[in-house]
Amino acid sequence: MDPKRMRVVIIGGGFGGLAAAEALRKADLDITLIDRTNHHLFQPLLYQVATAALSPGDIAWPLRTIFRSQSNIRVVMGEVQGIDRAARQVQVTDYPPVSYDALIVAVGSRHAHFSRPEWEDHAPGLKTLVDAVALRTRMLLAFEEAERRAATSTGTTPLTFVIVGGGPTGVELAGAMAEIGRNAMLPDFPFLQRQAVRILLVEAGSRVLSGFPPDLSANAQSALESMGVTVLLNQRVRDVGPKGVSLDGQFIETGHVIWAAGNRASPLLSSLNVPLDPAGRVFVRPDLTVPDDEWLFVIGDAAAVQDAQGHVLSGLAPLAMQEGRYVAAVIAARTMSGRRAAFRYVDRGTLATIGRAKAVAQFGSVHVSGLWAWLLWCTVHIFFLIGFRNRFRVVSEWIWYYVTFKPGARLID
Amino acid sequence: MDPKRMRVVIIGGGFGGLAAAEALRKADLDITLIDRTNHHLFQPLLYQVATAALSPGDIAWPLRTIFRSQSNIRVVMGEVQGIDRAARQVQVTDYPPVSYDALIVAVGSRHAHFSRPEWEDHAPGLKTLVDAVALRTRMLLAFEEAERRAATSTGTTPLTFVIVGGGPTGVELAGAMAEIGRNAMLPDFPFLQRQAVRILLVEAGSRVLSGFPPDLSANAQSALESMGVTVLLNQRVRDVGPKGVSLDGQFIETGHVIWAAGNRASPLLSSLNVPLDPAGRVFVRPDLTVPDDEWLFVIGDAAAVQDAQGHVLSGLAPLAMQEGRYVAAVIAARTMSGRRAAFRYVDRGTLATIGRAKAVAQFGSVHVSGLWAWLLWCTVHIFFLIGFRNRFRVVSEWIWYYVTFKPGARLID
Repeated sequence: MDPKRMRVVIIGGGFGGLAAAEALRKADLDITLIDRTNHHLFQPLLYQVATAALSPGDIAWPLRTIFRSQSNIRVVMGEVQGIDRAARQVQVTDYPPVSYDALIVAVGSRHAHFSRPEWEDHAPGLKTLVDAVALRTRMLLAFEEAERRAATSTGTTPLTFVIVGGGPTGVELAGAMAEIGRNAMLPDFPFLQRQAVRILLVEAGSRVLSGFPPDLSANAQSALESMGVTVLLNQRVRDVGPKGVSLDGQFIETGHVIWAAGNRASPLLSSLNVPLDPAGRVFVRPDLTVPDDEWLFVIGDAAAVQDAQGHVLSGLAPLAMQEGRYVAAVIAARTMSGRRAAFRYVDRGTLATIGRAKAVAQFGSVHVSGLWAWLLWCTVHIFFLIGFRNRFRVVSEWIWYYVTFKPGARLID
Repeated sequence: MDPKRMRVVIIGGGFGGLAAAEALRKADLDITLIDRTNHHLFQPLLYQVATAALSPGDIAWPLRTIFRSQSNIRVVMGEVQGIDRAARQVQVTDYPPVSYDALIVAVGSRHAHFSRPEWEDHAPGLKTLVDAVALRTRMLLAFEEAERRAATSTGTTPLTFVIVGGGPTGVELAGAMAEIGRNAMLPDFPFLQRQAVRILLVEAGSRVLSGFPPDLSANAQSALESMGVTVLLNQRVRDVGPKGVSLDGQFIETGHVIWAAGNRASPLLSSLNVPLDPAGRVFVRPDLTVPDDEWLFVIGDAAAVQDAQGHVLSGLAPLAMQEGRYVAAVIAARTMSGRRAAFRYVDRGTLATIGRAKAVAQFGSVHVSGLWAWLLWCTVHIFFLIGFRNRFRVVSEWIWYYVTFKPGARLID
């Protein structure tokens, strides 16, 4: 690389990091993109891999292939150990330190079990392809086990899945499990009764999808209930163990708890030595930098950004992408900190899906539910899927599933 | 199930077991199909999963879905522990014993390292989806590691892949690795040199594809060599270790040896207490039964069947399928052993592919090489892929890859 060129290091190939790298396509810079995996993951569809509707390869795309024709970028697959701000270097396992003039930290978040890490064994979350394939395997094995019990009359334990957290991920998972578990899979398990498959969605607050207006929350809840999901509101999880989950007033016997209640930003952020909020995110300045370095940016789920009303924005793919492009523009123009316009999130609307022809959408004061929201959801998700090949595969899977009710990726390996 | 109906148990959901079960679709029987996995695997394309050209879900199909509308069959996912011939029962882990009136043993084979099981750690084989995904991960990580070394100048060790065994699997793997490794992946690894990727195919005999006529072997070898594969003939493997592989006169330094040299039938067959051939297969009678039970059939890779010339036929998907249908006809008609016509394999030709537009085919005395053989290979493989969905996906992947040179499933998870 040219020693006179500005060196930009991006940690993380999620929505934010990818958007920044792509926006710097034509910049005269030396960019290094570091990710622990070799692929960009389209996280909003991860729950479809977990429920065997899509294959891992449908929602992930090798980072090297994405940047194959971008000559100013080097892709490094490696685990970042820490950030040495004094030396302006990123430490990567089995790799020489990577020096930067500007650093974009886009390391995302992991699911968090409040302060009870021991719950994770019994209530896995859903953030990576490995998580999704593990959940899929557990779900398919649970059906096999329940069928075995029913066929040999050795027990009548119902097959209970408990999803903790009524945010978009929890609602999408509950809807997908109801659809796939009760509609698509049951015909293949002749001994299992429909009533034997129970899906419970547990939410600590008073409504699901609390980020949406109350009318859409109500619509989402009744859509879930019409699909056979039991929604438990105002129920806090007290304990999770191998036998089941304890809520405020009841114990639910199950070996299948899925955690979709809250995230925590990457532990790597502590090596920045800047103040973090309770969810482990960096309080960034209006130009998305840390307080004492105008060329160290934090974006995406790792950053706590405030909107005009003082609300913290987080956990949205469009937000991360807009942040990535904002930072890219600052870096490409070498804008000094005093001359930077503050980052502003342009909210183009929010969508959440519940199931086949069921979704909710909000665009400012416009609220949409049902088929039209769902068609919009499909369009938006396909539009954002990287690469023609994946779009094509996902669409063909969805059409196939819609027509036949047979999910495509029901492999136990 | 009806206690008066004949109980047929099929062990193994490969080509043979599946063909038998499907041919019994309308028979008035109680069929139980037992497989350790939940899917039928289209093994001839397994090497494409191992080389990241296809996804696991493209070549596997849930057994329950295949038999969803066949009411006389029960699918059991479970590990068969043994066959109790005296009690006429199959023992399955965590499942009550399964009684049979007729038993079809279609348990297939695993790769075998002659009598050196300790080699397996350093030279894995390719028989299951787990094998294929493990190989894919190793190959992709090896490229990442080589790129890291080249980018940081910490070494110039070439990236050497050694494939042991010049049969169809070895030839297909070598061709696919040459194509994908040297053509499709190299553009994504800017520091790696083309010459740094070496693919060696080691064969103990005097030619590759020894099951084909010599002219086709020669064509296959020159096609491989034109793709950059080094073919080593008359070279026996003396040792395999973590540092590399010892051949008759040389040591090849590599951490990437893939075993495609010889199979051994399932160890389960020893519980039948019948004579086995050196490859562990059962010597079946002309009606595919074991010597002392006219309702115990062994088919597919587990059986050693002789043709009219006394050659042992084995390891061919069409053979297994014909055997499955033959046995199904005998069972459906309850033909007693004295009245059964001997099984006869109808050889409709043999095909092996080497790469893009390169294949060999034999139909009796007609030998075909190159583009036409390859088109035929594509057609036959697509035709036999189970289910419209998989056909559709595989074709779209192949076309995509053919046009773009970008393989689709390059995920490290």
